[in-house]
Amino acid sequence: MNVGVVGASGYSGEVLVKLLLGHPQVKLSVVTSRQHAGKTVAAVIPALRGTAADQLKFSESDPTALAARKDIDLWFLALPHGAAADFAKALLPAGRKVIDLSADFRIAELAVYEKYYGSHHAPELLSQARFVLPELTDPKWKQELQLAAAPGCYPTSVLVPLAPLLKAGIITRDHIVANSFSGVSGAGKKAEEQYLFVERAESAKAYGLAKHRHLAEIEEQLSAFAGGKIVVQFNPHLAPMRRGIATTITVPAAKGATIETLYTAWRNAYTGRPFVSILTSGETPDTAYVTGTNRVDVSAVHDARTGNFVITSALDNLVKGASGQAVQIMNLWLGFPETSGLI
Amino acid sequence: MNVGVVGASGYSGEVLVKLLLGHPQVKLSVVTSRQHAGKTVAAVIPALRGTAADQLKFSESDPTALAARKDIDLWFLALPHGAAADFAKALLPAGRKVIDLSADFRIAELAVYEKYYGSHHAPELLSQARFVLPELTDPKWKQELQLAAAPGCYPTSVLVPLAPLLKAGIITRDHIVANSFSGVSGAGKKAEEQYLFVERAESAKAYGLAKHRHLAEIEEQLSAFAGGKIVVQFNPHLAPMRRGIATTITVPAAKGATIETLYTAWRNAYTGRPFVSILTSGETPDTAYVTGTNRVDVSAVHDARTGNFVITSALDNLVKGASGQAVQIMNLWLGFPETSGLI
Amino acid sequence: MNVGVVGASGYSGEVLVKLLLGHPQVKLSVVTSRQHAGKTVAAVIPALRGTAADQLKFSESDPTALAARKDIDLWFLALPHGAAADFAKALLPAGRKVIDLSADFRIAELAVYEKYYGSHHAPELLSQARFVLPELTDPKWKQELQLAAAPGCYPTSVLVPLAPLLKAGIITRDHIVANSFSGVSGAGKKAEEQYLFVERAESAKAYGLAKHRHLAEIEEQLSAFAGGKIVVQFNPHLAPMRRGIATTITVPAAKGATIETLYTAWRNAYTGRPFVSILTSGETPDTAYVTGTNRVDVSAVHDARTGNFVITSALDNLVKGASGQAVQIMNLWLGFPETSGLI
Amino acid sequence: MNVGVVGASGYSGEVLVKLLLGHPQVKLSVVTSRQHAGKTVAAVIPALRGTAADQLKFSESDPTALAARKDIDLWFLALPHGAAADFAKALLPAGRKVIDLSADFRIAELAVYEKYYGSHHAPELLSQARFVLPELTDPKWKQELQLAAAPGCYPTSVLVPLAPLLKAGIITRDHIVANSFSGVSGAGKKAEEQYLFVERAESAKAYGLAKHRHLAEIEEQLSAFAGGKIVVQFNPHLAPMRRGIATTITVPAAKGATIETLYTAWRNAYTGRPFVSILTSGETPDTAYVTGTNRVDVSAVHDARTGNFVITSALDNLVKGASGQAVQIMNLWLGFPETSGLI
Repeated sequence: MNVGVVGASGYSGEVLVKLLLGHPQVKLSVVTSRQHAGKTVAAVIPALRGTAADQLKFSESDPTALAARKDIDLWFLALPHGAAADFAKALLPAGRKVIDLSADFRIAELAVYEKYYGSHHAPELLSQARFVLPELTDPKWKQELQLAAAPGCYPTSVLVPLAPLLKAGIITRDHIVANSFSGVSGAGKKAEEQYLFVERAESAKAYGLAKHRHLAEIEEQLSAFAGGKIVVQFNPHLAPMRRGIATTITVPAAKGATIETLYTAWRNAYTGRPFVSILTSGETPDTAYVTGTNRVDVSAVHDARTGNFVITSALDNLVKGASGQAVQIMNLWLGFPETSGLI
Repeated sequence: MNVGVVGASGYSGEVLVKLLLGHPQVKLSVVTSRQHAGKTVAAVIPALRGTAADQLKFSESDPTALAARKDIDLWFLALPHGAAADFAKALLPAGRKVIDLSADFRIAELAVYEKYYGSHHAPELLSQARFVLPELTDPKWKQELQLAAAPGCYPTSVLVPLAPLLKAGIITRDHIVANSFSGVSGAGKKAEEQYLFVERAESAKAYGLAKHRHLAEIEEQLSAFAGGKIVVQFNPHLAPMRRGIATTITVPAAKGATIETLYTAWRNAYTGRPFVSILTSGETPDTAYVTGTNRVDVSAVHDARTGNFVITSALDNLVKGASGQAVQIMNLWLGFPETSGLI
Repeated sequence: MNVGVVGASGYSGEVLVKLLLGHPQVKLSVVTSRQHAGKTVAAVIPALRGTAADQLKFSESDPTALAARKDIDLWFLALPHGAAADFAKALLPAGRKVIDLSADFRIAELAVYEKYYGSHHAPELLSQARFVLPELTDPKWKQELQLAAAPGCYPTSVLVPLAPLLKAGIITRDHIVANSFSGVSGAGKKAEEQYLFVERAESAKAYGLAKHRHLAEIEEQLSAFAGGKIVVQFNPHLAPMRRGIATTITVPAAKGATIETLYTAWRNAYTGRPFVSILTSGETPDTAYVTGTNRVDVSAVHDARTGNFVITSALDNLVKGASGQAVQIMNLWLGFPETSGLI
Repeated sequence: MNVGVVGASGYSGEVLVKLLLGHPQVKLSVVTSRQHAGKTVAAVIPALRGTAADQLKFSESDPTALAARKDIDLWFLALPHGAAADFAKALLPAGRKVIDLSADFRIAELAVYEKYYGSHHAPELLSQARFVLPELTDPKWKQELQLAAAPGCYPTSVLVPLAPLLKAGIITRDHIVANSFSGVSGAGKKAEEQYLFVERAESAKAYGLAKHRHLAEIEEQLSAFAGGKIVVQFNPHLAPMRRGIATTITVPAAKGATIETLYTAWRNAYTGRPFVSILTSGETPDTAYVTGTNRVDVSAVHDARTGNFVITSALDNLVKGASGQAVQIMNLWLGFPETSGLI
């Protein structure tokens, strides 16, 4: 099987290329980058020196030319939102499977997308696309879709722990408060003063309060699982680390719910799923233990004083929060073992 | 004026000694440490080489001997809880002013103290002592007390933003959720595997969920300001940085409250107070901007989607969260300018 | 093929277990640890949750019992020096292949070993053992040895760039100055105050000057390649990072040597070797680009002003500097592709 | 006394403004910045909130207008090289004292300046200017000069330990090898990809090998102290920290020199100097202990195996390596205590 990556110059693009070069069942045949066309992948991503990246060259990013590549079975889009839709418009008619890492096809409701991201470049494709979080999305997506939208890092860290609990009625629907703490790579590879080492080292701060873009995915998905409108207070923060997201969610327990019923709901949802680890109550997930893996670690405690559950999760924003999740989607879609190239 | 520091081998002790050596109105005449007795302060705190710390020597920590030091006007206790009470028992009868950085005298209600810290070594002194947060505590403490308990780092980061809002009825009393992200020095100078550089670098995690010790101070103080029982969901986290605490508080707005009324309440409380900076709504406090200062930066936004205020604060856990606050208390108590040795 | 790891509780042990669990040709059947016997590997190394480490349990470290395990084809010793020799004494007579990550068998000359490490626990085995740096050691070791000593991190960072140059007479033998900058994991998993996050973050310092233990290996090996006594000024430093070693070597160019002849010597030595990347002159190796890989990146410039070559290298102290190198040795010894489980 | 700072938007400018705002004998009356004119200093340097920086505003940077400010007794130039000379041209004729933090007036020999920095904007002023390292430069500079050039960070870390040794003939003049490890702030506040947090964290690397600009100062000064041409192999490195420079110098001991004669030479040079701390042989300077201070810590060992001295130093590149040194120069020039505003 041959796969291609469109736009691999960002941090998640780097990780995606690394994962695909090491994947036992696929060959990474095309990697495009407007900025780096002509250079070898290893020249741009020095961490990959000494691998096939020494030979593989970045090619131009031309939608029509890529659509003409009959040899490519599946394309990954690692592009800014907007640009992703432009490429999808060219690749889908050519009958190719597409996995998009951008936000363009994560939100089913056009109005919601436009509220957070502005006008959509390919609304006509929304019907053939869907948000796919492998552990949560109905497996029928594998037959139905032509384009799978890989969830973002923050949403994955909130949805994996919460979705089964909403479905099982373990938590209330009100007063859901999620605080996330992200490594700086979550901001992308932007040469801005605020992301300089000297500015971010030894610094912790909240940002994007009240209306963060990822709320669109988070609430649309949670509402679907709850079967009713869910509103979340989502507070993202920057932490002085390169990778990782630690999320802490406070939510009142539903009537009759206990820490045992919560863990049972999690076990029912995730037993046998290789990429969700359920930690003992009291043990808290640590981003350092998930960095470089495709895992989400989850845990919870019940606070008798407040009646709340305090639910914690940790994942690597560039792996389970982006590229690893995209490869996991590919594995399931192409019929490979779910963990191929990921463990 | 001569002052002494009992037990200065921890991180806040180091900062306290540094601040007092640079203070224009007091002379640091005694520094004790069981572990380091006989060594110069500079030998133990190399950052202070080239100052008076090259001459000043650590002396033994003997309560009776210290109580006999008629030349010392004020003592700082930088000791673990329990040990602090033991020294207070000796120093108070000698008529000395004492500023305690431990938890021993922060909590008025003995039962609450014992629930979180175990048996109290000097309950008989509680009546002569009080929790003193200079910006919030009734100034009469200066006449009434013989022992002032300096607030802890987490409580200061929660109380400074919340107390005026509870007093003014700007926020509801339910569903107060505070998430704090602390630098590793908050855990003290403990040679434990979990605090090694390799374990903490590139790591973010929650800890001590559901019943953190600092809740005792936080809730007792908030309840006093609210004039009624307040319960808080407090979630502390470790961030890969040396110093600083960033706190993010979510709480439903009270009926009729707006972001303007919130800021008015803050201005009424803090205008003219040198160590509280009120940032524009939308701008978020950054621990990097308060490190090394005695400041608390506060800010808030109103989230129309949820009806919550999201309130953020940042301070240096070793300065405004410990030693700087203690020096500020001394300044007010001894009649010096509040900012002496702190700006 | 079945392999076992003796003593896997340190940082290089963790990396070794991770590499072996992911290795396509071997099965990690035994992992021992006095401290952790009975616990699962995932409980001790949480980064390995969701892998075979969830089932695999640490067993006791008893030399005789391990020697009796007829099913184990090769043993890795990840133990402090001294302890390693004790296990080698039991395993070698049982006819097992052994790869030792400690210093016990790296030094051929007993007197030199004892000068740096004290008395040797198994000098009688020195004849069956040898220092094996796959890119440099005569391949005959595969037939001759029963015990292979994997080189340390600092020596590998010095030997890989220098050995071919000494052999080819490109550099003088005098005034070799090597400065190395190591991540904190190089000091091991020691719960000492000096290795706490707060002490090491934002800190750079030299240590162990004038007589660092690794000099024993470095000079013995360089002398062998040079065919004459080589003395090196080796200055190690600690850098505020978890992993990686950057080494910068200054040495006068030999008469007639140029940057071209230097690069030719390197190409002759390393062309076709997957784990040595030769960077363009002027480009400098960066530890961030080798972390997590088994690569050594090398580069050099000629300084016309001083007549020196300035030679730089970078590697991951836990991979090419320890466990990755050990796995590479195993791959060659057991006839697997050199890169198995390493790319 | 009134002072002004021209161009205070970089990292050393920030530190300079902070030091001057806290200085007991001078008033910082003017701070200019083309980029920030009109904003308050606290708005641009949030770390200074709650100080006079809340009122003080950045003004335009116009040489003629500044020259007309009769009330300013002394100007600091915190500008890129080239720009500094342009302002000096306007301010010197107006009879003002000027302390320049750039390279423009550090090098006496025009040809050397131009070799490293390109054409000089005000060569005619070189005669009225001089490189001033307070601990080393002949005190007559105070009477003779109108413009004092504050030394750079790397040169200070090399000159303070070496100059007295060359003067006293303790070390040879050949084979001087200096390796420096610098925090990222040394590269300035540049929004470039290479200085992003994600690129620099967990990364150590050499850069600018063979011909680093600071060599011009280092060698000109060392040659002056040695009374003969000195050539140095200078290898700078970037370390993943915000501030600090650790320098390690290897140089053969002169005939008859011992570690005692070396320390005697240092004591003769620096006893009574508040900003040079001489550590015991074997103890190594740590950047973490000098950060935020104006100190240089120095130490040395003699290596009997190689006949070399290994000399180590540490300083804060933004304080003793830039702004603190400039304030120290001002203190001496205006007759204040040398440590005013610096301890």
